[in-house]
Amino acid sequence: MKVEFVNPFITSLKNVVGTMAMIELEVQKPKRKKNEVSFGDVSGIIGMVGPQVKGSMAITFDRDLAFNIMKNMLGDAATTIDEEVRDMVGEMTNMICGGAKNALSEQGYQFEMAVPVIISGANHCIQHKVDGPKIIITFASDLGKAYLEICFDR
Amino acid sequence: MKVEFVNPFITSLKNVVGTMAMIELEVQKPKRKKNEVSFGDVSGIIGMVGPQVKGSMAITFDRDLAFNIMKNMLGDAATTIDEEVRDMVGEMTNMICGGAKNALSEQGYQFEMAVPVIISGANHCIQHKVDGPKIIITFASDLGKAYLEICFDR
Repeated sequence: MKVEFVNPFITSLKNVVGTMAMIELEVQKPKRKKNEVSFGDVSGIIGMVGPQVKGSMAITFDRDLAFNIMKNMLGDAATTIDEEVRDMVGEMTNMICGGAKNALSEQGYQFEMAVPVIISGANHCIQHKVDGPKIIITFASDLGKAYLEICFDR
Repeated sequence: MKVEFVNPFITSLKNVVGTMAMIELEVQKPKRKKNEVSFGDVSGIIGMVGPQVKGSMAITFDRDLAFNIMKNMLGDAATTIDEEVRDMVGEMTNMICGGAKNALSEQGYQFEMAVPVIISGANHCIQHKVDGPKIIITFASDLGKAYLEICFDR
């Protein structure tokens, strides 16, 4: 997978969380591992299909970051991963993938997004089923962590 | 969402589990609820995108059914949701969605499948972010349960 595919997702995630929740995330070095999995408390997953592109994106938040995003967006700190938190994660998944879609479209890569799916459950694990490598990127901050996993089959 | 969209997924799931693991699943009445969520221990999720179709499918297994499928397929009973179980769920997700894709294609509905994503974690919860209704179908057996959730945006 080429770096020009990954960078728009990284930029979009930083932009969305920065703009919506005023939280500055520090991007750690992308890891390319076959058996690495990401763990978190609430995740959004979305599929992508296009003529040259077939893949999926998962964004996983730990509780701390999810609660802090809610607090900064709405003024109320969440105390459980409830309907409101799941809605926020679904919305962010759409926005992050949509931002990357626009950037990639300008580079000549077109794809359509499927419907976001939200997963909640303490310390669940996400794994893409794909023959090639997957890219996992950790986003760190004092307010919690997020993990972005992207893979493309072609 | 029309019933002709849902039935091919039901048939395909029954076929795949019946053929691969010789387990007969009993289909319960589909539920159409806006806020219903499915809970399980290991899930496969896949996005679908086509000219008339945009959606996603999630198939969730409880531990008992996942372990019994492994036992019937490989002879060895699994005792944890490990790499092998997750691989099996990813493979089944592809096969179930692929079977429905073929059936729907014969009815004139074309779509491409994204990449399957596997979720594990005790009692995690899956929720599609979609404005319209979602369909949840429970599959029961003496050996455990599975839940199929399908939604389409258009």
